[in-house]
Amino acid sequence: MMLAASVLDGDRLALARLLTHVENDTADGRTALRALFPHTGQAHLVGITGAPGTGKSSLVNRLALHFRTLNKRVAIVAVDPSSPFTGGAVLGDRVRMKDLSGDRDVFIRSMASRGALGGLARTTASIAQVFDAAGYEIILIETVGAGQGEVDIARLAHTTLVVEAPGLGDDIQAIKAGILEIADILVVNKADRPGVETTEKALRSVLELAHIPESERAHHGTPPEIDSAGPTAHSWNVPIQRTVSLDGLGISELADHILRHYSFLHTSNQWIKRNEVRLAAEVDSVLQHMLVLEFHSRLPEGRYNDVMRQVFARRLSPGEAVESLLDGTRGEHAEPVDGGRQR
Amino acid sequence: MMLAASVLDGDRLALARLLTHVENDTADGRTALRALFPHTGQAHLVGITGAPGTGKSSLVNRLALHFRTLNKRVAIVAVDPSSPFTGGAVLGDRVRMKDLSGDRDVFIRSMASRGALGGLARTTASIAQVFDAAGYEIILIETVGAGQGEVDIARLAHTTLVVEAPGLGDDIQAIKAGILEIADILVVNKADRPGVETTEKALRSVLELAHIPESERAHHGTPPEIDSAGPTAHSWNVPIQRTVSLDGLGISELADHILRHYSFLHTSNQWIKRNEVRLAAEVDSVLQHMLVLEFHSRLPEGRYNDVMRQVFARRLSPGEAVESLLDGTRGEHAEPVDGGRQR
Repeated sequence: MMLAASVLDGDRLALARLLTHVENDTADGRTALRALFPHTGQAHLVGITGAPGTGKSSLVNRLALHFRTLNKRVAIVAVDPSSPFTGGAVLGDRVRMKDLSGDRDVFIRSMASRGALGGLARTTASIAQVFDAAGYEIILIETVGAGQGEVDIARLAHTTLVVEAPGLGDDIQAIKAGILEIADILVVNKADRPGVETTEKALRSVLELAHIPESERAHHGTPPEIDSAGPTAHSWNVPIQRTVSLDGLGISELADHILRHYSFLHTSNQWIKRNEVRLAAEVDSVLQHMLVLEFHSRLPEGRYNDVMRQVFARRLSPGEAVESLLDGTRGEHAEPVDGGRQR
Repeated sequence: MMLAASVLDGDRLALARLLTHVENDTADGRTALRALFPHTGQAHLVGITGAPGTGKSSLVNRLALHFRTLNKRVAIVAVDPSSPFTGGAVLGDRVRMKDLSGDRDVFIRSMASRGALGGLARTTASIAQVFDAAGYEIILIETVGAGQGEVDIARLAHTTLVVEAPGLGDDIQAIKAGILEIADILVVNKADRPGVETTEKALRSVLELAHIPESERAHHGTPPEIDSAGPTAHSWNVPIQRTVSLDGLGISELADHILRHYSFLHTSNQWIKRNEVRLAAEVDSVLQHMLVLEFHSRLPEGRYNDVMRQVFARRLSPGEAVESLLDGTRGEHAEPVDGGRQR
């Protein structure tokens, strides 16, 4: 509780400490998260995703600097699933420091993935909540990679930027891969490179092909109350913005798109809808995590390993193993592992 | 049971039908999977992953054709998380058909992702088991993208190929992103393009930097019996192979690396170890899935929605919501949602 109060008071050291607690999922972290939760819901969460090599990190730096000129408090959450031994997270921090260090209204947090990605998305959601409660108005969530896992993290955001670069996305095969579905804004970064027209043209044709009404976008979870505004009532045309993050070209326009999308979300009721989808997904993820922990604590000692040995010997299929494990904790029709099987 | 028997008899139509059952997670599919499981464990599962645009699909086609010249039965599982409306899966099938159709010892299955990725990895594991039981000796599992989710799918494999291409991986930032950790073989595809030396050099330096002993590789799950062979006892040096999938350059060498890795896995006991890790992960995933389903079936009608409404109003934090839901099914200290809270 003390930690939460200090964070609300603007104590940067307490904020850093709390973020570590949250990342390590400690009891103190969980307590503070609960105390902070009623103070959340103000920040604009902006996800930035795209394939490796598109220059996302520099782009995020540039955006942060730009939003500072608009006097907004900015947090950056860099989700880097690279392994700890390559030192990706540490390197990232050092590179960013040059431009943004010393500014008390910017806070940068790199997260190296150590567990499963579901856990990472869960932790990122909590980190964003801490920044939100601490009064950061824009939270830039950067994910490395372009897979479904990154998509799940990007779904945390109100506004999602998908970043491409010339030479990466020049065949349609490369571009269509799932993530376009979640893009609110498309960015062609490194736009000073040859092939920029081809990339932009390909993106445009895929956009025209897809033309997904907002109401049909794939989101996880099913919030109980969905505002069913018609698909055409408030629609958002996904803009394509060229940028060169090295010299800042197009950054101001990109920031405008982001702020325009923020307004769109509010006028179209999408702001509430997206928050609900996001919170439902978070509850589902925590719930799943707790159910598994609880289950293992109820399981008799050695039971799990016994069953797994039967699976390794191909005497039990994974499905049968799960049934056997579930029976074991229900306590009623528990039988020896091999008991009920005839083959 | 009939379906399983027909599949074991080599009935292609039954195989196709069973794959659909498995993809849709039907009761018939689950029954057949159990009947087939004791017949699994022979196939060599080869994962092929890498960023979009690296030409994985053509590479997989070429590999399949090559393994056919060695008289091996080959299955291809193309995991395409692109959305249904772009028709990615269908297009993929059509392109592949040209080279491989008509060959009764090749079976190609494209999977379009519709659910969460955890579910996709689970389904892919089951699909691979079906092919394994049906006598396919080499199963090529191709995943689009390069994120953690794809990594999870690649972990299903005994041998994992990570595919790069010039122009994508020319900065270290792009290459280090997590997936190198899982590579048994690195492929520089499109090796006729400019920049191939740079890409290969960057890969080599990252490999030298990392130098991960096999015994410390990150794998999910903890199988009860781990053979603790020393890290240097049997080591595998990750080769880097250049290929041009369009004209078949380097494909034969790449296939040799794959077969060499198969031998390495057997002589070093890694074959058993990887199977165990894989099966443990599969059991954990099915278990988690079942726990969530069971939990929701025990939950009183309307309870979930009630709790979610409190979360949406920021009166309950996600953590508190989960506690409240768990209390509700334990049946003991169930209270009105707001009951126990003072703020």
